Amino acid sequence: MKISVVRNILEANDRIAQQNRDLFTENGLLVINLMSSPGAGKTSLLEKTIDALKDDVGIGIIEGDIQSTQDAERIARKGVPAVQINTGGECHLDGNMIRDAFKEFDFENMDLLIVENVGNLVCPAEFKVGEDFKAMILSVTEGDDKPSKYPLMFRESKVLLINKIDLLPYVDCSLDRIKEDSLKINPDLSIFEISCKTGEGLEEWYEWLRERIKNREVIS
Amino acid sequence: MKISVVRNILEANDRIAQQNRDLFTENGLLVINLMSSPGAGKTSLLEKTIDALKDDVGIGIIEGDIQSTQDAERIARKGVPAVQINTGGECHLDGNMIRDAFKEFDFENMDLLIVENVGNLVCPAEFKVGEDFKAMILSVTEGDDKPSKYPLMFRESKVLLINKIDLLPYVDCSLDRIKEDSLKINPDLSIFEISCKTGEGLEEWYEWLRERIKNREVIS
Repeated sequence: MKISVVRNILEANDRIAQQNRDLFTENGLLVINLMSSPGAGKTSLLEKTIDALKDDVGIGIIEGDIQSTQDAERIARKGVPAVQINTGGECHLDGNMIRDAFKEFDFENMDLLIVENVGNLVCPAEFKVGEDFKAMILSVTEGDDKPSKYPLMFRESKVLLINKIDLLPYVDCSLDRIKEDSLKINPDLSIFEISCKTGEGLEEWYEWLRERIKNREVIS
Repeated sequence: MKISVVRNILEANDRIAQQNRDLFTENGLLVINLMSSPGAGKTSLLEKTIDALKDDVGIGIIEGDIQSTQDAERIARKGVPAVQINTGGECHLDGNMIRDAFKEFDFENMDLLIVENVGNLVCPAEFKVGEDFKAMILSVTEGDDKPSKYPLMFRESKVLLINKIDLLPYVDCSLDRIKEDSLKINPDLSIFEISCKTGEGLEEWYEWLRERIKNREVIS
């Protein structure tokens, strides 16, 4: 019985996510659902990405947190529109929350919307919000056993950004094991090795993302 | 309506957790529910704690993971009984799962049962399993903004272990901010600054834990 309740919730969410998806496509937006454990570097990646792209890409950000507006404040300081969703205890964002938040944007000149999900390597992977694709961050400090222990997020994501590689000399973590195990779960994963602190590896990410924005589906 | 479904699930869980609690007390066990984000160091803390205490404390471990048996294998290598629960997608352990796992133990000579929850800084805080108290780990690599962003777990825990302090020179993280914000949420929190890698700070934790084991409630 519990399972059927969960299934109903997921199906209802899928319908709303599809409506969001249609709305995003009508408005010519590329939408990314960004997920990770708490503290893996989602907001830091957004700050770097905004700095690199904002001169020629219209960017909007939705910040999902259980509580507090710290992340939206960090993004707003970068000079792009940011809407904070406080889930009030919920461990993930869903289609409804994004639909409401999206109303706050003036999306005339927006090309890219990034939704920063609640920090959680489990639940957000189950709930679509209307994104073109999911991207996830794993930091090397979390350890190289994470793909095999939390496979759903690796399976659902199109992109894996392995962050904090500047800390590799100080932690026991094999990049090869992360990459090998991730690709076993999801052979189509695009993997970037990055450090939001030093900037290493970010150029490849920006270039990949620009290509995606250029080739996004636009209906008007 | 969704809220009432969630409330019913939580209330049903509370009843089962209380039954577990009674069973643990009858058997003279101190039970700790250990929680954190993925990769904060739960299994490493268990390995260290087992090495330090196993000669004079009877220890059992329940390992909660969505998938894989890697953590139970790590614990079994330490020579103490370990039962692995695979939640099959669920983001937290609940009372039912612990009741079933507990049957696997020969608890005649056990004093301490530690339940390692699924790596998740959100959902496990809502579900009691019958523990005497909850303990949480936050690693400094996750950042000092976590208490204000994920307050429930800090509020529900009796112990906060701040791990990976050996990495403090390489990350932007203020221990003072973590401690200040945590104590604002939960003034009764016992805080330990530790490194499972170097062993720093662990003696204080062992001593505190020994004291708790000595003074545990025993009914027989």
